Amino acid sequence: MDWTLAQRAHKMNPSVIREILKVTERPGIISFAGGLPSPKTFPVEVFAEACAKVLRDDGRAALQYAASEGLGALREQVAEMLPWAVDPAHVLITTGSQQGLDLVGKVLIDPGSRVLVETPTYLGALQAFAPMEPSVVEVASDDEGPLLQDLHHTLGMADDPADAPQAPERRRLLQLDLDPAKDFPRFMYVLPNFQNPTGRTMSEARRAALSAETRRLGLPMVEDNPYGDLWFDTPPPAPLTARHPEGCVYLGSFSKVLAPGLRLGFLVAPPALYPKLLQAKQAADLHTPSFNQRVVAEVLKNGFLDRHVPSIRALYRAQRDAMLQALDQEMQGLGVTWNRPDGGMFLWARLPEGMNAIELLPHAVDKGVAFVPGAAFYADHADPRTLRLSFVTASTGQMHTGVAALAQAVREQLQRR
Amino acid sequence: MDWTLAQRAHKMNPSVIREILKVTERPGIISFAGGLPSPKTFPVEVFAEACAKVLRDDGRAALQYAASEGLGALREQVAEMLPWAVDPAHVLITTGSQQGLDLVGKVLIDPGSRVLVETPTYLGALQAFAPMEPSVVEVASDDEGPLLQDLHHTLGMADDPADAPQAPERRRLLQLDLDPAKDFPRFMYVLPNFQNPTGRTMSEARRAALSAETRRLGLPMVEDNPYGDLWFDTPPPAPLTARHPEGCVYLGSFSKVLAPGLRLGFLVAPPALYPKLLQAKQAADLHTPSFNQRVVAEVLKNGFLDRHVPSIRALYRAQRDAMLQALDQEMQGLGVTWNRPDGGMFLWARLPEGMNAIELLPHAVDKGVAFVPGAAFYADHADPRTLRLSFVTASTGQMHTGVAALAQAVREQLQRR
Repeated sequence: MDWTLAQRAHKMNPSVIREILKVTERPGIISFAGGLPSPKTFPVEVFAEACAKVLRDDGRAALQYAASEGLGALREQVAEMLPWAVDPAHVLITTGSQQGLDLVGKVLIDPGSRVLVETPTYLGALQAFAPMEPSVVEVASDDEGPLLQDLHHTLGMADDPADAPQAPERRRLLQLDLDPAKDFPRFMYVLPNFQNPTGRTMSEARRAALSAETRRLGLPMVEDNPYGDLWFDTPPPAPLTARHPEGCVYLGSFSKVLAPGLRLGFLVAPPALYPKLLQAKQAADLHTPSFNQRVVAEVLKNGFLDRHVPSIRALYRAQRDAMLQALDQEMQGLGVTWNRPDGGMFLWARLPEGMNAIELLPHAVDKGVAFVPGAAFYADHADPRTLRLSFVTASTGQMHTGVAALAQAVREQLQRR
Repeated sequence: MDWTLAQRAHKMNPSVIREILKVTERPGIISFAGGLPSPKTFPVEVFAEACAKVLRDDGRAALQYAASEGLGALREQVAEMLPWAVDPAHVLITTGSQQGLDLVGKVLIDPGSRVLVETPTYLGALQAFAPMEPSVVEVASDDEGPLLQDLHHTLGMADDPADAPQAPERRRLLQLDLDPAKDFPRFMYVLPNFQNPTGRTMSEARRAALSAETRRLGLPMVEDNPYGDLWFDTPPPAPLTARHPEGCVYLGSFSKVLAPGLRLGFLVAPPALYPKLLQAKQAADLHTPSFNQRVVAEVLKNGFLDRHVPSIRALYRAQRDAMLQALDQEMQGLGVTWNRPDGGMFLWARLPEGMNAIELLPHAVDKGVAFVPGAAFYADHADPRTLRLSFVTASTGQMHTGVAALAQAVREQLQRR
């Protein structure tokens, strides 16, 4: 039997991370690899009460087909949660925020369209966009987010070389012979808060500059914010979308503040784009499960998140602190560096020069610890020395053991050189 | 702000049916328009018990991220439900069977790829495929399904003109200058059981012939079966997929036998195709809500559907009989014809020559009754005299009133001519 696949199907690949997780989710392995929220934070009893109430009060409506836009009450709750004036009519409930990426890709990406991303960036976004066959262009980024000079280079704009960062992307992009009309990017995709994979946060100064400049250029932004509520000390600066709603699509999720197994996310889009995203949503799955929407709308009543999310923040902060402390103790003298995220679930580390995280992984697994090599998160030009460490899956008790095992794997690799 | 849309976005349009429903869902209107299952059939208490049990027994796992393939237990239940030997490894749980159509479109359709459909066909499939920009080709169909002679014509194959049906499609297709290599269709999409919109069922003879011929030709089939369990007297003949699993993708749904608000469907695909559909699924929404999958797996235990589905069949059969009886009484002498579906939710009617169902609709709504004009369900070459009547939304009490109102609207239109 001959099945002729669409061209785009050849761009789809199994998730590197899921393949790694299959190997590393053996019993006894301490996992810093997965991106799973801690199940301790799931408000199971609250869900049980909400399910019972929804089915008792209006069970038949909750189990019926529903509007593609999403449940009115939930769209209003989302609009109220967000830190700028959002019209509920601009909120679209999605089957997880991953679906928001799929819809954005369908509506905005033609084969060969240029899409700008930070470096590194969220692997799931690269996968969601891939079937639409974009030309993904990395914008060199530092600890505060994407660099404006490099943004200019990706657009084929001249810049003072003295100001330009010495990123490999820059040299590549300057060699491109760009047609500004054809090659102007469809959008730039950013994760400003506690980014997956690095845990980094875009500073207020960078946000202000990036927002002003993309607005001036007419460059649309797709802002993904699944982790923004998981801040440890102070809330992150205002979203880019709040600064220019007409020029941004904003993606949010209940996966990290309630539970991922409900697959409930949302997007906020300007009137110029909303109807097309809605049509794409309708064609994709008609609507997000109405039962799940009603249950979450019930859970959210009376400020539940205001009481619940602080407990997640406290747990994850303690986990981050335990990992940082273990790294300080165990990695001494090995030449490994790492950052100190202000929220979220991940920390980004870098091995000493000449080492490779992909090569390190099997040795680490032998020692009983797993992580995700950072190379998985680059559209191109991966830094092979990087790795992503999740601090929310392992218990604080396991943290020290896991980091010590990782340090031992690094030490042995260094000795073999 | 300039948003540059993808070419495919221009192929997306609001659902004609949803637009009609907005107009016709005024209070007091008897609706034969919607495609909603009767909420009386939703096992609300059973769901409530299953939700409580799932959250009590394994709440944290039910609320966590899960495998893109779907829950193992549910994939096994699906494989067991189906009337041929299905390996659970070939079952993919989808967010409603609409998502199955989206995934099939992504993996198999390039812009301009020919896709064959029955005429008329399911509007939601046309919408799901549209973003992938196929060239949709109708295969002329009669009361038993697609006509093999016309299938040959769509493939550019010569045929004895004496045997060919006098369908408009035929004349159009014979004029095409087809390149067999380039223009060979990616697949043929069929709904063999109690089709939406016509309610017709593909006969055993037609299935056998179509299966043998598409197998001989190497033409893949996408078989959509949301209504197959809703038979009234005897089960429909075996699915096409059962006859040639290597050459078919099979789509199924829990929307009509349990409840649509959970958005739970599935597909069965051969090993040659499954991995790509899985990758498309992962990119689209990571996985179908794990909570919903666990709840339905719980509901399905101990043969629940074997006890539950007969009550849906009995209800819908009574509703169909009430509509047929009302049509017999009220439509006398008007020249309206209709079929007698053996299951499902819809009946297909045809107005007398010269009348147009789209023009009739506002007059019918004035009289207090709504339907969907059949033209919505054709990829091309619509028959303007046809209309779809759902017999499951209105109560049997409303049935006679609604049909009488429809007959009166027809009568007045005839008198105006």
